Parts: sequence; C-alpha cells; structure tokens
Amino acid sequence: MEFRYYMPVKTFFGKDCIVKNSGEFPLLGKKAFIVTGKSSAEKNGSLADVKKALDNVNIPYVIYNKIEPNPEVEDMRKAAVCASESGADFIIGIGGGSPLDAAKAIAKNTPLPIAAIPTTAGTGSEMTPYSILTFDKIRNKKSISTESIFPAAAFLDPAYTETLSAEVTVNTAIDALSHAIEGYLSVRSTDVVKPYALESIKLIGECIPELEKRSFKSDTREKLLYASMLAGIVIAHAGTTAVHAMGYPLTYHKHIDHGRANGLVLYHYLKFVERESEKVKDITDIMGISGVDEFGEILDRLLGVKEMLTEQEITEFTKTAIAGKNIANTRPQPEESDIRKIFEDSFRR
Amino acid sequence: MEFRYYMPVKTFFGKDCIVKNSGEFPLLGKKAFIVTGKSSAEKNGSLADVKKALDNVNIPYVIYNKIEPNPEVEDMRKAAVCASESGADFIIGIGGGSPLDAAKAIAKNTPLPIAAIPTTAGTGSEMTPYSILTFDKIRNKKSISTESIFPAAAFLDPAYTETLSAEVTVNTAIDALSHAIEGYLSVRSTDVVKPYALESIKLIGECIPELEKRSFKSDTREKLLYASMLAGIVIAHAGTTAVHAMGYPLTYHKHIDHGRANGLVLYHYLKFVERESEKVKDITDIMGISGVDEFGEILDRLLGVKEMLTEQEITEFTKTAIAGKNIANTRPQPEESDIRKIFEDSFRR
Repeated sequence: MEFRYYMPVKTFFGKDCIVKNSGEFPLLGKKAFIVTGKSSAEKNGSLADVKKALDNVNIPYVIYNKIEPNPEVEDMRKAAVCASESGADFIIGIGGGSPLDAAKAIAKNTPLPIAAIPTTAGTGSEMTPYSILTFDKIRNKKSISTESIFPAAAFLDPAYTETLSAEVTVNTAIDALSHAIEGYLSVRSTDVVKPYALESIKLIGECIPELEKRSFKSDTREKLLYASMLAGIVIAHAGTTAVHAMGYPLTYHKHIDHGRANGLVLYHYLKFVERESEKVKDITDIMGISGVDEFGEILDRLLGVKEMLTEQEITEFTKTAIAGKNIANTRPQPEESDIRKIFEDSFRR
Repeated sequence: MEFRYYMPVKTFFGKDCIVKNSGEFPLLGKKAFIVTGKSSAEKNGSLADVKKALDNVNIPYVIYNKIEPNPEVEDMRKAAVCASESGADFIIGIGGGSPLDAAKAIAKNTPLPIAAIPTTAGTGSEMTPYSILTFDKIRNKKSISTESIFPAAAFLDPAYTETLSAEVTVNTAIDALSHAIEGYLSVRSTDVVKPYALESIKLIGECIPELEKRSFKSDTREKLLYASMLAGIVIAHAGTTAVHAMGYPLTYHKHIDHGRANGLVLYHYLKFVERESEKVKDITDIMGISGVDEFGEILDRLLGVKEMLTEQEITEFTKTAIAGKNIANTRPQPEESDIRKIFEDSFRR
C-alpha cells in the first residue's frame, strides 16, 4: 500500500452554511474579489448570501460577473489584472465549474486564497487543485494543476441547486458520476480513494430514478451535491482518465456540455476497461445493476438523442484525446486505435 | 445533511515514505526539534530514517527523547522551553500516542508546524488536532484541542510497527477500533465520516484472527496502520465518546494501557448504545459477526484476564468519567448510573 492524501479544503456543507460561517471569511483576507457568471448566482441566492456574510464581518468586495462557460485562458489573464487592480486579497468563486475554474485561474499567480461555492452538483471543483480552461491556441480544454489553487474553504448549500434546469442537473450528475468512476479506475487510484469513490457512485446510483424522470426532491439535490463533493476528493487524488480526455474536444468543437460529453463516451470506456479490470464490477455492484450493459442503458435514457460525429471529426478528436495528459491515468493504457473505437462505438447510430 | 470537513494533514503512506519525501521537511521549517520516547524510535528504524531525510535536505535538528508514556502537562511545559531554546522552528513527533501527543503540546503555544510519524497502529494522532495529556492536578487525562496542532504532515511507514510486541499490537488495534466505532456512533458523526469509519472497522475486523493468534504478517501490520489512520480522520471530525471518558481514569489510576482500557469497557458501552441506536448493527454487520455478544467474545479473547476494580474505584472512576467532555458525544446520553453500570458489568467476574 502506498499513497499520498491531501485535502486541505475547509468544507462546510448544509443549509445556510455561508451565512452561518461568516466568521471564516476574515481568515481568508480583508477584501474579496467575487468571480461568478452573468446571472445564476443572483437567481439561486448564493450571491446574496455571500454579500450578507461579507457584510456581517465588514469585508468589502468587488463583483466580477463576466465568466462565460468554458473560460478561455486569455480572458482569465485579463480578469486577473482586474483582481489585482481591485486591491482584493482573496477570491470567492461562485457557480458551476466555469466560475470556479476561473476563480482558481485568477488566484493562481499571486497566489491568493480561494473560497469556492458550487451551485451545481457536478464538477467537484471546490475540492480539487485543478482549473480546467479553454486554450484557443491548441483548440482544446486543458487543466492546470497546482496545490496553491486548492480552495482554502468551500461552502456547499444544496439550496442553490434547486433552481437548476433538469438538463443541467442531469449533465452535472453524469459529470460527478464520471469523476467517481474514473477516479476509482485510474492508475493513480489508491486505498484511501476507494471508500469515497464507491460511496459517491452508490449515492448517484440512488438518484437515477429521479434523474430519469427529470424531477428532483430536495433530498436528492442534497445527495447529488454531496456525491459531487466526494467525487471531487476522489479526482483530487486519482485524476480523471480517457473519458475526460475524450470529452474535452467534444466540448471545444461541438459545444457539448462537459458532463454530457463525458456521459456520451462513458459506456464504451467502461466496456474497454472491463476487459482487464475487475474493478468495473465493483461499480455496477454498488449501483445495484447487472453490469456495464445495464449501465449503458441508463446512460442512453439520461442522454436522449445523441449528437452525430463525422469521420473527420472522429479522426481529429481522437488525435486530440490521445494527446491528453489524463490518458496516462487510464488502465488498460489505450492506443490511438482504442480511443478511435470508443468514439466510433459511442456515436454509432 | 450538515457537516464540517477539515483534514489538512499532508499524508504520506508506504514503505520508506519519510526518505522518499525528504523534500517535504524544508516546507515545514529550517531546524527541527525531534520529540520521541527513550528508545523505540531507534529500535524500529524511524529515527534513523528521519535523520537521513533531514540530512538529505540539510536541516539541522535537536533530539528530545525524554517522553514517558502518558505525558504530564507540566513536563510538556518544560519540554516546550527546551524546544524554544533550541531555536527549532518545527517539531517532529515520532512514536506511539505519547510522543505524538507530546509533540503537539510542545508545538501548541508558539504555534510551530508539526510532522507526525506514528510507530504504533492505534492512536491516529497523526490525523487529529488533539493532544491527550495527563493532568496530575485533576488526577486524570484530558485532551487539548485546537486547529493549530493538526500535524502539517504525517508519514506512515508500516515497517516501524514490525518490532511492536504482540501486546502493544493488540492494545493499539483495539484503540483504533474503538476510535472508529465511537466516532461512528458519536452524536457528532456525519455522512462524511461514515465511509471511513466503516472501512476502518471492516479492515480491523479482517485482522482479528491474527490479533487473536498474536502473530502478524506484514500485510496485516500495514492494514492496521491504515485503519488506525482512517479512525484518526473519523475522531478528528466526530470525537470520542463514553469509552474514552471511562478509559482515562483506568489508565491514570490503574496504569492500564490506553487501548486496553478502552477495550475493557467497549462491549458494555455497545450494549448500552444498542438499546437506542440501529447503527451498532452496521458495525457488527461490516465485521461479519452476528452481533454485539460475538463482539464481546472477541474482546474477551483479545484482552485475556481482566483487571479487578474495587467498589470504591468504581465509584471514583464513575465520577471522573461522567465529568469527561466526551460524555456529551455519547448517544443515548448516559446518566451517572449508566456509567457506573458499564463499569460494573465490564469488571464483573
């Protein structure tokens, strides 16, 4: 047994956890630069809670609400200049994966402490030292990773996920499930990752009936947010694998939502891994399903009508994916032909 | 669901993890004050590894090897003066619970960063912000707890536990099991504690045949160290309960080893808790045993001939235990008469 375990994020989970723990913000700094998207943080109440918490402890703040989905690295450089000019000494990221990734990118160079407030249940970004950015130069998404962008604090209030559309809820749940599965199957997976990976998979498995019906009780929203957090801890240690490497070009070129992109290739990835790993059975066992084929049927129902890829796109995306750094985490190690076949099988009519 | 999760210890587990990760020590400081017992760190090789790692990175050190079992708080004040006079800016604790508790007490006031190197598989101290000290003034042991004494780093090399006697191995394994069980049953137990608590209990359960035979394969030593680490994460979040409150006077007055002291009252504590908590069944289920009575039979075999307590001792220890702060974590909440009865039942011939 050999592993490294490091999870320095001070994590608060539960209703009203931001306002209840206002006292945490002065530990991060004296002035906050709030990074968020155009409107969702206003709609779901998270921004109002952050403002209230900061007011409680007399911390001034600047709001930067210009984060677009899949933030581009040059835009982040500009945002970092704004942060610097604002005089803020810590960053608060509020939103789905994109604002959290942006907050980390903006904080990275100084580096500044980060508070992460997820408002979707999928990325687990609040628990990772990763920022996934779009690099137009290489026509793909890529992660930057350094310990300094581990959020110092995370606040997870399931209430903010109540206003998510069914589509976003399903896509982000698939993203979280993909994290837990990929992390569990990664070559970097360790004993200490296993209990949280399997717990996350089990919990998301329990939510599948509601995900299929696209109707969610509050308890289910809470469970998905918690499972996403656990999956974040998993990938913080074990990384992601071929699924993410294949998903990035689907998002960059076809504008397919990140979680959905993972879901589209997840079944044939599992078929590929299953040939050499008995661990795939642990996953379907804990979900209470008969095997990978039943898993594929669930994904089909969650994803609905699939996108089409041309031969040329498959060729290009295969070349992009095989160059992704998470390919090295994949066991068995895929050749370019394996990746091509997973794309072909995933998008076959 | 509501919880707080915080586990900032950078943890390295595996063979030769200290020397392999020499580069971590310069992150802690420029001069080390090594806190350990009289001889075990020399015998088991841990001190030599620490010296080698520090030499690798040119960090000077002072060795303070005067820690006795169950360190007394006044002795720790004196040791802290030595640490201060040495000019060291970080502390390395090497040993069982006592040197690790001592290292934390010595580091506490400044505070200084701590590296924790457990050489028994029981206390989980490397993962907690607790230092359990003897206070002669109140004639008992008591924990001090503050975030600043969370070790900054922990190095767990199972090789150091190879030289432990069978008695110490059994007692410390019972301590770890008690942590996982108490943490799981604590009123402060949360969803995020559960996977690690049950995994720890399951792993220690797998070691019971060898614990009973008092003969240990290296794989089992490794498993016990890992389970102890997980149980440390559990009590860092959920605390301990009545078992520890009852164990402290047994150790202070009767000089019963800490792990054994917990083991002596653990069965009747579980009988008490079982009346109102279905969670006790989760514990015996994951151990693959029929129930609490079988658990009691295992403990009987592990503990052998039990100590005797006089009526007067039971009265005094009950008063001490009911005043312990971990009583508040116990559900159902015990009255003084409940604690007395657990003592009586535990030590009845």
